[in-house]
Parts: sequence; C-alpha cells; structure tokens
Amino acid sequence: MLIVMRNDATADQIEQVCNRIRQLGWMPNRIPGSMRVAIGITGNKSAIDPQLFEPYEGISECVPVSKPYKLVSREVKPEATTITVNGQDIGPNTFTVIAGPCSVESREQVLVTARAVKAAGAQLLRGGAFKPRTSPYSFQGLEEEGLKILAEARDETGLGIVTEVKDTDKLDMVAQYADVLQVGARNMQNFSLLQAVGRLNKPVLLKKGMSATVEELLQAAEYIVSNGNFNVILCERGIRTFETVTRNTQDLSAVAAVKRLSHLPVIVDPSHGTGHHWGVAPLARAAAAVGADGVMIEVHPDPRHALCDGQQALTCPEFKTLFDQLCPLAGLMGRRI
Amino acid sequence: MLIVMRNDATADQIEQVCNRIRQLGWMPNRIPGSMRVAIGITGNKSAIDPQLFEPYEGISECVPVSKPYKLVSREVKPEATTITVNGQDIGPNTFTVIAGPCSVESREQVLVTARAVKAAGAQLLRGGAFKPRTSPYSFQGLEEEGLKILAEARDETGLGIVTEVKDTDKLDMVAQYADVLQVGARNMQNFSLLQAVGRLNKPVLLKKGMSATVEELLQAAEYIVSNGNFNVILCERGIRTFETVTRNTQDLSAVAAVKRLSHLPVIVDPSHGTGHHWGVAPLARAAAAVGADGVMIEVHPDPRHALCDGQQALTCPEFKTLFDQLCPLAGLMGRRI
Amino acid sequence: MLIVMRNDATADQIEQVCNRIRQLGWMPNRIPGSMRVAIGITGNKSAIDPQLFEPYEGISECVPVSKPYKLVSREVKPEATTITVNGQDIGPNTFTVIAGPCSVESREQVLVTARAVKAAGAQLLRGGAFKPRTSPYSFQGLEEEGLKILAEARDETGLGIVTEVKDTDKLDMVAQYADVLQVGARNMQNFSLLQAVGRLNKPVLLKKGMSATVEELLQAAEYIVSNGNFNVILCERGIRTFETVTRNTQDLSAVAAVKRLSHLPVIVDPSHGTGHHWGVAPLARAAAAVGADGVMIEVHPDPRHALCDGQQALTCPEFKTLFDQLCPLAGLMGRRI
Amino acid sequence: MLIVMRNDATADQIEQVCNRIRQLGWMPNRIPGSMRVAIGITGNKSAIDPQLFEPYEGISECVPVSKPYKLVSREVKPEATTITVNGQDIGPNTFTVIAGPCSVESREQVLVTARAVKAAGAQLLRGGAFKPRTSPYSFQGLEEEGLKILAEARDETGLGIVTEVKDTDKLDMVAQYADVLQVGARNMQNFSLLQAVGRLNKPVLLKKGMSATVEELLQAAEYIVSNGNFNVILCERGIRTFETVTRNTQDLSAVAAVKRLSHLPVIVDPSHGTGHHWGVAPLARAAAAVGADGVMIEVHPDPRHALCDGQQALTCPEFKTLFDQLCPLAGLMGRRI
Repeated sequence: MLIVMRNDATADQIEQVCNRIRQLGWMPNRIPGSMRVAIGITGNKSAIDPQLFEPYEGISECVPVSKPYKLVSREVKPEATTITVNGQDIGPNTFTVIAGPCSVESREQVLVTARAVKAAGAQLLRGGAFKPRTSPYSFQGLEEEGLKILAEARDETGLGIVTEVKDTDKLDMVAQYADVLQVGARNMQNFSLLQAVGRLNKPVLLKKGMSATVEELLQAAEYIVSNGNFNVILCERGIRTFETVTRNTQDLSAVAAVKRLSHLPVIVDPSHGTGHHWGVAPLARAAAAVGADGVMIEVHPDPRHALCDGQQALTCPEFKTLFDQLCPLAGLMGRRI
Repeated sequence: MLIVMRNDATADQIEQVCNRIRQLGWMPNRIPGSMRVAIGITGNKSAIDPQLFEPYEGISECVPVSKPYKLVSREVKPEATTITVNGQDIGPNTFTVIAGPCSVESREQVLVTARAVKAAGAQLLRGGAFKPRTSPYSFQGLEEEGLKILAEARDETGLGIVTEVKDTDKLDMVAQYADVLQVGARNMQNFSLLQAVGRLNKPVLLKKGMSATVEELLQAAEYIVSNGNFNVILCERGIRTFETVTRNTQDLSAVAAVKRLSHLPVIVDPSHGTGHHWGVAPLARAAAAVGADGVMIEVHPDPRHALCDGQQALTCPEFKTLFDQLCPLAGLMGRRI
Repeated sequence: MLIVMRNDATADQIEQVCNRIRQLGWMPNRIPGSMRVAIGITGNKSAIDPQLFEPYEGISECVPVSKPYKLVSREVKPEATTITVNGQDIGPNTFTVIAGPCSVESREQVLVTARAVKAAGAQLLRGGAFKPRTSPYSFQGLEEEGLKILAEARDETGLGIVTEVKDTDKLDMVAQYADVLQVGARNMQNFSLLQAVGRLNKPVLLKKGMSATVEELLQAAEYIVSNGNFNVILCERGIRTFETVTRNTQDLSAVAAVKRLSHLPVIVDPSHGTGHHWGVAPLARAAAAVGADGVMIEVHPDPRHALCDGQQALTCPEFKTLFDQLCPLAGLMGRRI
Repeated sequence: MLIVMRNDATADQIEQVCNRIRQLGWMPNRIPGSMRVAIGITGNKSAIDPQLFEPYEGISECVPVSKPYKLVSREVKPEATTITVNGQDIGPNTFTVIAGPCSVESREQVLVTARAVKAAGAQLLRGGAFKPRTSPYSFQGLEEEGLKILAEARDETGLGIVTEVKDTDKLDMVAQYADVLQVGARNMQNFSLLQAVGRLNKPVLLKKGMSATVEELLQAAEYIVSNGNFNVILCERGIRTFETVTRNTQDLSAVAAVKRLSHLPVIVDPSHGTGHHWGVAPLARAAAAVGADGVMIEVHPDPRHALCDGQQALTCPEFKTLFDQLCPLAGLMGRRI
C-alpha cells in the first residue's frame, strides 16, 4: 500500500505514520516528490486495511498497489526521477551519453579514450575492471589496477565513472572508486548482490537480463530500492531471440513500456544491443527518439585489438560523429545533452 | 553470379549476354543502376565458371555471389532502390507515412479516416478487406465490398491504397483495386503466393514473419524479385519473443541490418510491432531515427469499437500529433516527408 | 456453445436442433461420440442464450464453451479421437510410425526406402513432392511425377502415403494420390489452405508452426474441423528458440498440453524437431514416453547425397534399430505398434 | 590442449609432464580414466605447440581441443562420468530420482515428504532453504533453520540432501549440511559463485539458465571443473520461449546434445520445465526415454498450501505412481533405479 501525505503534512506527522508502519511489522519507505511525500509500505505478506491509518493526521490518501513492484512504479511516484552523478543529471530533462571501453586494458587505452569521449561531449566514462565472461579462459579484467586507472581518468577529465561490480565480495572495493555501480545482465537476478547495492548510497546502473521481461526488470530494481537506495538507472541492452544477424535484439518497445510503468530513468546500450559496430549509431539515434534518458556506447581507440567485444566498439572519430547526430535529436525530444 | 556490364555497354551487347545465359539453361535478371546495367544469373544449381562469358564484349566484371539471396542484395545493387506508388516515392530520399484502419469495416469508417490522415499529411492509405485471423470465428473482412470502399477513398483523397492479399485465388481481384499488394506476416513463407505476386507488375509490401530471421525475409523477397517484380517494400512488424508487456517485440536492429544487406526500402509497423496504442508514437519516431524509409500506422476514428485490433490504433487527432513529430525527425535524417 | 444430445435422442430430434441452429444464422457441427451425439455451434459472434433451445426434445445439456477453439477441444469431446488411414488406426491405442524420405528424389530412392521401412515395421510412408523451400534457388520437388512414385510405392508395399500440399492450386492433384494431406509448418496459418483441406474428406496432418503457440495450433485445427473435416492429426516439429545446438527445439511439453486440451491425435517429428541425425532416436523414444500417438521419421538410403535435409535423416539400418527400441516403449504406454 | 598419457605411464612421468605445464605458466588438470590418465591444459591464451612436450616420456598423444570448454567435453574424456552421492551413483548405469518440496516450510512438511518419497523409492531429497525469488516481497526461505530440518530428514531416512546455495556468503554454511550443492538457473552465470563451488570437494548440481545455450551451460560447468571440482551434475529445467501454455519449455533435445558433447551426468527437472503438475509425469517419463541420468521432482504433502510453486508439485501418492512408471522405463534404457 502507498500512503500519500498531504502537501502541508509536517515532518512529525510523517514520522508518526512511519512509526505505526514499523509497529505493525512492516517497513516504511519515504518517496520524496516535488509537492508532497508518499510512504510506500513493504514487507507485508497480504493486502493492508487502510483503516489502520485512519486515526493519523496529515494523510491525503491510502492507495492499494497491485503490481508485483511498488516503489519503482509510476503509481507510487508519477513524476520521472532525476539522478545526479558527478554533476550530471540523468532524468527527463537531459540526454546522458556514457562512453568508454568495454574493459580496462591499460592506462594508455583508458586515458586516450577518456580524453576523446570527453572532447566529443560525453558526460560519463564507462569501463570494466571485473568482467563476467562466459568462458573461464577469457580475459577477466585488470581488477583493482583497472579501477585505479579509471579513477585517474576521472581526475584528469572530470568524467564520472560507471563500472561493473560482479559480486558482493568485491563490492566495497568497487564502490570506493565508482560513481555508478553497474550490475550486469547476468547478475540481474543475483538477489544477494541486488540487496547489497541496495544498502549503499550510490547510484546503480541495472542492466536488463538477456531473457528478462520488463516486469522482472522492475522487480529486480525493487530489490535495490526496497533496501533504501532509490538511485537506480535501468538499462536495456538487448534480449536473446532467434535472430542471429545481430548478437542480441535491441528491445526499444521495452523502453517505451518501462517509461510508462516506472519513474526511474532508462538508458539504452546499443553496443551490446546489436553486437556490431554498424548497428550502434542507428540504434543510439533510435533510443533518443523513443524517449530514453541516455545511451551507453563502447568506444575503443583500436577496436581490432580490443581484448573484449571489439566488433561492437566505435572508434573515437566514429563516436564523435554519433554524438553530433544525437545532439539535435535530443533537442527535438526536449532534452539538454 | 552477377555480371556487371561496362557503363558504355550497348543494348545489343547486353542482349547477347542474356541470350548466352538462357542458352545455358539459367535466367538473366537485368538490374538497372544509375551508371550501368548488371545482370544477375538465377536458376543455377551450383557455382558458375566466369570463363563461360569471356568471349563476350561489354562486360566489366563477373562477381560470384555467396549469400542465399542475390537480386535483393547490396552486393548486386549497391545503391538504394526507390519505388514509386501513385506519385509517392518510397526510398532513401523520402519518409513515407502509410495510415488507415486495420480492417475496412464500413464506407463511413474508411472515408472519415482517409480524410483525416490525408489532412494530417499521410501519403498512402492502408486498410484490410481480407483479414487472416487466428480464430475461424473472428471477423474475416468485407472482401470485395471492402476493396470498392478503399477505391472510393482513393478517388476522393488521391491517396494510393495498400491492402492485403491473402491467397492466390483472390490475387487478381485484389490487384485490380490495390496500388500496393501487402503480403502479411503469416504468409511470408507462402511461397506460392510470393511467386504469384512476383509475376505481377505492381509494388508489393512484404511483412516480416513473426519468427523470421532477416536472412529469411530477404530470401522471401528474392522469391518475388526472381520472378520479375523488383518493386518490393520490406516491412518490420515485430517478432515473437518471451516478452509479454508488448504484443510483439519491435526489432529495429533488424531494420539497421536490412539497410546494410539489401537495397530494397524498409518500413516499420509500430502498431503491430508493439500492439498497444501507447507504443505506436515512440516506436514510429525511433523508426525514423534508425533510418527506416517510412512507417505504417493503424488509425481508427473510434478505436474502442474497432472490429479488429482496436487497442493498437491511434485516433485521428493522435495520428496528427505523431505526424507533426515525425516531420522534423525525417528532416534531420535528410528525408522529405 | 455445445448442445449435448441424450443418448436416446432420435435422428429426427438431432436434425430438428440442427435446423434451428441454421435458422438462427449459425452452423451446426455434429460430433459423433461413443455414447451420444453432441452438436457444436459455430459462426456465432457472441454468447448464445441456451433458452433458444428449450422447446426442443432430446437435448441433455447446453454447455457454453469459452476457449477460442471449440470443436477440437476436450470440453466438447472428452474421449480421444482415432483416425484410420489405409487400415492403420492413429489414436490412443496405437503408436504409429510414419517413415520415409524428406523429399521424393527418384523412383529408386523411394522404393528402396519404402521396402526398408515396411520391413522394419513402419505403418505409413512419408515423402514430399512439393517442397516449400526458404530459398527460391533450392530444390523444389518433383511435383506430380513425385506423387506417382509415391503411389507406386503404396501399391507395392501397402503403406499409406503422407505427403505435403503447399497451396490450394495443387490441392486436387495432391489429394488424388495422398492418403494423408500434410500441411507444413510454414502454412499452419495459411487460412485459405486450411479452409480448403477442411472441405475435403481426407485425413490432414497439421504441423505446428515454428513460432506457433499450442493455442494457435488448436485454432488452426479448428479452421479445418469447422469446415467439416474432423480427421486432423496434429504434429509437433520443433519450435524456434535461441538455442543453436539443435536446428529447432523439440517441445514435448506442448505434446502433454495438447493431449490435455484436445481430443485429436498428436504425433512428433524428431527429424525436424532436432535437425540432426544424432537427436532423432532419443527424441523419438521420448515422444513415445511423453504420450504421443506416433512419430514421423526421415529415412534416406544415402543421407549424405540427399537433396534436402540429409543431416537429419536416418539410414535404413538406423531406422530399424530405432523401431526396435520403440516397440517395448509403446507397450509400456499401453499401445500397439 | 589435452595430453593423453600411455596406459603404462608411471606416476613420476605424469608428475614431470604436470611440472612442465606449470613451468610454462599454465595449469595441468588430471582427468582420471578407466584405462589411462589424461592431462588437460588450461590457462593458455592461445594454441599450444605439441613439440614442447616431445622430450617427455609416457605420453601417448597430444590432442588440440577447439571447443570453448575442454575439461567437461567428451573429447577429453570419452566415457561417461559417475558421481557418487551418499552411496547413490549418478551416471550411465543408474537412473536417479531426486524428490522433495520446492522450499523447506516446516519440520513437519519436510519429514512427511521425506518419508513418503523414500518409501516410494527416491534416492535423494531436495528442498530449498535459501530461495532466489523474483519479487523481494515473496517468501525467501527458512535459511539455516531450513538446512537443519533437511539434515534431520537425512538422519532419519538416509536420503542424501540436494539444496541450493544462493551466494558465496552463505556457501560455507550450506556446504556444511548439503550432500549436493545446487546452483540455480538464475546463478548459472554468477561466475564468482561457480568459482567458489569449484574450490570445494562436494558434488554440484548446476541448473541450465532459462536463456542459456548448451554451449554456455558447458562453459559454466567448465568454470567449476577448472577450479578442481570434477563432481558436476548438469540439470535441464526448461528454457524461456514464446509459449505460454507451459511456464517454460522443457528442452529434451538439449539433453541429447549434452550427452553427446560432455561426459558429465545430466538430469531433468520437469517440475520447473513445465510449471504445471499435469506436465510432470509425462516429461519425467520422456526424460528417462531420452537418455537422461535422472530426474528431480517437486513433491509436497499439500500442494494447494505450498508457499512456493504449489501448482507444479506432485502429491505424495502422485509421486509414487510416477516412480512406478519410471522403473520399467529405466530398465528398458539399461539402467538400475
């Protein structure tokens, strides 16, 4: 259930409602809005009787919520959420471009790429230091050394860092360096990891699993949010289908669906979504036009010699060309880039 | 194999090469280009020895073709094809908007819709008189009466007509009224129908099957083109996946792939692609940005009372709003609308 | 709606109920059962009021039917249907093995195969004379010459013939030779063809489309049955998924579901279901154990030189080995083979 | 690369080859066979030159391995592996039936079920104490209390325990109680967890991810085996497709493929594979006939009141009936049950 407080409710009234919820054995989750506060109740096993809150003051409405997710839904918070990362707003008024290599391979590679994407206009830098690889014999990342290289790139360029955390063991280490913690597609239903990042106060980029439905993505986000961390950015990175001309099938209909059901920002990763460099620019443009809040693009100074996923990376000049195409598109959609 | 003639090759030299191909038991297919003529050879069971054509004059190059489709590929014809329907060019320089009801229900319904979409800016009118329906107990269309209503709408508004042909039995009848013959998704591998429309001299709109790969779509188009009809417009209308939040999954990565592999125009149908009215405008915009040559949109004056697929139709005012969003997007992509 | 007649209802009473149904603008479909007759009403657009039939005698019950298919459902006919082909019963008490080449290539090839599968124990012979091929440049079948070869094989071995009909144009010709008309997976939603075979009085083998759901398969069968032909045998031949180790994914859960929902017999085609010779025997055995009414197996005297799908054909000795494995399995399932 | 030692190779010769491999910076993995030892080399980034081992004695052959997995492949170990759990062999000569509730709900529920499945003939008991649930608001399991209940059931019935480990944090605790550690479908690519169970000396039941290919399953198994734990049992539990009549699509073709490619035992879980109690017995029988090494069946004394997945559980008497059907099927396949 969702308790919507009146816009003149006092801090004390809000606190009393929260205390009552705790007394009943459930958990109150404050959802700050532009006009008023709402309180989502979680932890209940069955429907809640609104009469339990009748004696309390400052309450505008008690709304039953039927979806298997609550806190991330538009029912609970109709206006779109903006998340700020290192000075960059990710939300309904901006179009955020995250760019960088698939994996951190060397100091040189990261710094060259970071300078190039910064110069082109990107707002955040991506790069993986811990790589979840399908084969145990593939390159698994530079680990902490890679994180240090990313931090150096941030120091030099001012770009915030998006980097993947692969397990709870290394979470503290990754969180020390990252501005945004990426949870990868294969970990979208690693519920222990979701709960752990939910207990931190740091933005999370949650990638949609390759066979996850929109409803399952929102439930995964709910795991994070219901642990107290509201700073979740969703990411569509392609789903697995029968089609083989692309590595995955980029599901932009899912983006339209997510925008309708949830207040959280959604970005699109056309590099994994298509798996081929020739698909990146068309799908990045389409992501802007469909209403996504940003894109994440793999860029490599020398894709042919990349240790990971070189076939889907843009070169630095190709990225610059794409960025220049995205600017007027974002403008048409009423967004700053 | 593909024989590329020199740009100064005479009509006589071209004819002699074609005759030689016929002598060998194969079929020559002339592919007119802006600079020179190419001749695709079909009907051969195995690789062809280029030496067979050594004695002939006017030949620039003999190119072996490895893909399971030839005539529709960029290898054979690098520049994009433009198809003209009732005065409207469908191709690389335009963005074509086809609009109208899912099925023809009444004279009133069609005329009201046709006037509205014409006023909004649409260039072609769609509407089904023969409906392939999953259940034998669903509305199957008004048949010839429906075709006459569409023809009346064309007479009044000047809009060319796109309408579906369901089987070879009714092909002559439908061809008498239609400006573009639509082959539906369930018929994409009805090879008898493909061959039959291939023998006509009328544009064909070929919808991608709901579980067809891009390669299979191009092979289906090859069935039509290899029978002599080069006027094929491809259409992505969503594929079947595990996702249930949308009726189908609109595969815009497939559009990017088709544009790369084939010279034929490709349009997108976001009404079937998403199956929900809330998905139509976002995906239509995304189709423009991904590089499609147009969109096909279901419009109904009163969607709640539609006999077929009302949940995915736009109202006339909603269509007008969408058209106005598409204009500047098409402009950014370097296309007239 | 379904009208269940009393077991002592007279022919005249049944006829009067049918006449009333026709008067009301709908269609009566007699469904003979072991104990009594039921009459399925089709052609109605909305729910039917049972009171319309109150004045009539001999009626036991009026049952509303909610599924999108009626005549093929267990609700309408709880006991399993048996279809007899050339003396072979296909139904709950038998396990029917259909075997033969993918396509008819020559008289020699068919006769050798027919003798071998007959000797091994097979009850019906399969072979395609009209082949729907993905590419227009693949072998398309021997057409009528192929049908004549199959008829000769029947004359010699006594095996009934199962062969594919690709379109309505050739239906009369194919029906002249075939004992069972096969409708292929790509034609499962070719509704014109379904209606045409529904108007004949000859058994139909309806293959499940590669992306069709069980519900859609039953609706396709309903197209045939509602046109008067109750002799429909369903066939699961693999669905299209992301898995590439097999050509398709054989869906035996669908067989269990069909047996529960429909009274029609269901057989399994493990040759197309797996697409590899090494998968045929294991999946054929699994089909017997899951409760299917039979299997259809591709057999070729020399698979390496087959013109079509050689990689999934068994040799004649491999087929004999498989047949000997199937016998005791069928026995355990309470079926004659 | 794989080094196959001669069958008269001495322990010392084997050790010298292993030392050489270590010197070169790679890892030797001894694979004991019935006749001779093979040594798989892992950790190499590129092809290995067999000449490096020319000077060493006792070597029969050096075999290059091309698949993205090595140690789990039939190329490396042609004969099927048998894994012994609490006295029960799981491998080519037996058919192992694992049964029990989806999740541990109470002492009473587990003991009643354990006694019933033991009496029916089951060889191992399953039950989840840590449940990975899609929604954060669903029942998540009794945790350590649940593990103690399972241990009590083992003490009483003698049945070995199969139970899920959800994350590395709880691995030590779960390993203390379990006879087989289950890695769930959602964790099939949780590589940190795979590595951690690979470092233990306890059998692992690895479930196929719902959108994992057979190749990815084998690579996931390779993560475990390459860390030293060769006791891996694979499990097919249904894949995600467009079909909705079943919860998942049980992929028995994948079982046939795995048996061909890998020496590891494979079992089938028809409870998750179909998601409906009516599908469990047919698919369990089919699993026996396809050649699986066992099945895992959900059994609940009162499915309607189960806290988790009750719709797919058999009652105790239904399980007894199924077990009695499986016995002669296993016998036909040449297996003890």
